[in-house]
Amino acid sequence: MDQRISLITLGVDDMERAAAFYEALGWTRVESPDGVIAFDLIGQTLGLYPKADLARDMGVAAETLKGSGGVTLAHNLREKHEVGLLAARWDKAGGTVLKAPHDVFWGGCIAYVADPDGVVWELAWNPHAPLGQDGAFQWNGAL
Amino acid sequence: MDQRISLITLGVDDMERAAAFYEALGWTRVESPDGVIAFDLIGQTLGLYPKADLARDMGVAAETLKGSGGVTLAHNLREKHEVGLLAARWDKAGGTVLKAPHDVFWGGCIAYVADPDGVVWELAWNPHAPLGQDGAFQWNGAL
Repeated sequence: MDQRISLITLGVDDMERAAAFYEALGWTRVESPDGVIAFDLIGQTLGLYPKADLARDMGVAAETLKGSGGVTLAHNLREKHEVGLLAARWDKAGGTVLKAPHDVFWGGCIAYVADPDGVVWELAWNPHAPLGQDGAFQWNGAL
Repeated sequence: MDQRISLITLGVDDMERAAAFYEALGWTRVESPDGVIAFDLIGQTLGLYPKADLARDMGVAAETLKGSGGVTLAHNLREKHEVGLLAARWDKAGGTVLKAPHDVFWGGCIAYVADPDGVVWELAWNPHAPLGQDGAFQWNGAL
């Protein structure tokens, strides 16, 4: 199994609400098949998909698919002050700030936020792990 | 907000069990700070982190962080027969096959599987969306 994640799929309650949220943050959707709204990332895609359809495909009850469980998605930023700016933008766009930006013991600054479907993201500035020119992140290059 | 996810963090109950599972699938961890086990992917990293620590950082009860909620991670494969081979490997490594490989209406073949912490992955072959040479996936290039 090669080390890659091709798609991150978010099962959402309202497709256009979810898409409008990420678009309000500055993202642009790409053309995709009916029933999916897709945002290309770096080497992978984030896909929005109706939660009821995801539950059907998985063979589980839709009520069991809440939030993001023990999974968080991190969006790293190049500058410390961007963490606060982006957290404010999430709030304004209809997301929730779970934990306001704060300094952490390892020298970075992070915030926890959630999208309208309760998917938890970490907004982070990590001075030990600069992003590549194209925004790519690799832990190994950071040490 | 640029279109990127820097890290996907999985809050896990047992760090070495979780790491051993992904290593059994063929992944190799990179050096990372104490308390984190990291696997570099394409332009991003998957990080394993103790669920109790993630709950503390997020300010929630650890019991609320179960599985992956409405989020699934997809690992796309180049050939249809690889879906079945990889699902079998997940099973052998201690994962769970939630839905065995099966053809889907859009022409692909997928399986749903879960890791030992209940994080749901989709193993997929999508003939309409070939992977790049390095394994990268972009939806836009696929249409």
